[in-house]
Amino acid sequence: MTLSESTTSTNDPRPIGVFDSGVGGLTVLSSLLEKFPQESFLYLGDTARLPYGSKSPETIRKYSEQCLDFLISKNVKAIVIACNSASTQFQNSQNSSDAFVFFKNHPVLTVIGPGCEVALEKTRGRIGVLGTRATIQSHVYFLSLQKRASDKNIKIEITSSEAPLFVPLAEEGWIDDPITNLIAYRYVQPLIQAQVDTVILGCTHYPILKSAIQKCLGNQVTLVESGQAVSNELQKLFDQKLINSNLSGTKPTLHLISTDSSVQFLNLARMILKSNLHFEFEVAEI
Amino acid sequence: MTLSESTTSTNDPRPIGVFDSGVGGLTVLSSLLEKFPQESFLYLGDTARLPYGSKSPETIRKYSEQCLDFLISKNVKAIVIACNSASTQFQNSQNSSDAFVFFKNHPVLTVIGPGCEVALEKTRGRIGVLGTRATIQSHVYFLSLQKRASDKNIKIEITSSEAPLFVPLAEEGWIDDPITNLIAYRYVQPLIQAQVDTVILGCTHYPILKSAIQKCLGNQVTLVESGQAVSNELQKLFDQKLINSNLSGTKPTLHLISTDSSVQFLNLARMILKSNLHFEFEVAEI
Repeated sequence: MTLSESTTSTNDPRPIGVFDSGVGGLTVLSSLLEKFPQESFLYLGDTARLPYGSKSPETIRKYSEQCLDFLISKNVKAIVIACNSASTQFQNSQNSSDAFVFFKNHPVLTVIGPGCEVALEKTRGRIGVLGTRATIQSHVYFLSLQKRASDKNIKIEITSSEAPLFVPLAEEGWIDDPITNLIAYRYVQPLIQAQVDTVILGCTHYPILKSAIQKCLGNQVTLVESGQAVSNELQKLFDQKLINSNLSGTKPTLHLISTDSSVQFLNLARMILKSNLHFEFEVAEI
Repeated sequence: MTLSESTTSTNDPRPIGVFDSGVGGLTVLSSLLEKFPQESFLYLGDTARLPYGSKSPETIRKYSEQCLDFLISKNVKAIVIACNSASTQFQNSQNSSDAFVFFKNHPVLTVIGPGCEVALEKTRGRIGVLGTRATIQSHVYFLSLQKRASDKNIKIEITSSEAPLFVPLAEEGWIDDPITNLIAYRYVQPLIQAQVDTVILGCTHYPILKSAIQKCLGNQVTLVESGQAVSNELQKLFDQKLINSNLSGTKPTLHLISTDSSVQFLNLARMILKSNLHFEFEVAEI
């Protein structure tokens, strides 16, 4: 191997792709930007076709693959699927303990596995999962938690609850709002009754409503967010040399792309990311 | 003209196409079925890409045209766009008093004009409009009401209010629910303050929540539903011989098509249409 080849293989300035149906994945992007300040990111929000959480598995798979193809065409080095409903379609069926799969030779991280890992570290035995209808009905969290708990020889009880109105409430920005508190209280009832100690926020929109959810569950319950969990797993991809860091010394870039032109998207993006953060924005057709 | 030609031209067994982003348009279909029991209907719900109300005008136009093309390919004789957000893109810009436009030689009825006509008949001068963000921000109701009122030499005041959460609430089936009442109360506040006497339900989902909306507004306020209004205008197309009736004597058919396979769609369809009504159902890709 020549020096030049070796240099090429350890410096990779290409961006990391992050994809969600809308603005929810920006909560994941926010964590990634904090942990990997030297990396460039390309965020794709499929706002023209959101929400994914109420669609069928076949439609979610089709739309997600189109989004992955789009990001690959933009020359990303890896992809984070920052959407739980989409992640249910890209679980590693051979080994549910692996947090990533390969899609057209690109490593693709989902949010399911990392969330399960963190929940199993934190729990005293009773785990709750909040998610969209598609995510809960896929049973992916239930199966992934059970497999991992069994591998680790831990005994757990799992209680799930569908919370479909959380996405439109977050998209509306009704965050510190008595109506949101009432709806949250209804959705978390089954988790309170099951006396869960740890709750996975199984949709990347839900951290936007974290304070209402925490208020209803009480402070003794630990909330697990996808963003922090997936950052740990992305670090492993670097550690295992499956992807290489940006060592070029050039300033990292941040691009946001949405599939529909919406003022709402930009307003929420500025709220979720630091409002003074510089990013390029464009609308693309998929 | 021979007798045979004359017979052909006054008998048209082809179905009438009805299109919406989801289940909301079924409230319109329900009225149409009641008024035109001899006609066949083909309903298309673009559930894979719903809701339309939060999307940009360009995306709504693109998706709507694809749906109209699909219905035309199924040999419909006319189309009712039973979705206000989609209707905003098909208003007759030459003559806003006409309730229909031609799209690829097919008469297409929208729900905006018919709703305005009924509201102007009922009002004592103060009209309220409830709609999705896309519908209200298009100002189509405001402009159409003003033009028609001016043509009729009537003086009116118009107050609009965006009610984006009504669609997910209706899709969830939270119909007789204190949370829906609270949200309805918040959305109709501007209309109560403006002392409106007549309110256009400017989204075909909203009749599903009619009882909550009426409760908040009070019984003295008249609610205008698109379904009844558009039935009157469809009758005019028959009267003007722009389309011909089904006189074939064959039993009319009812087909429902959605772009995503969802149990939710079928459950709501059975609730909104008469539950014992027979229909064929299929999922189609657009």
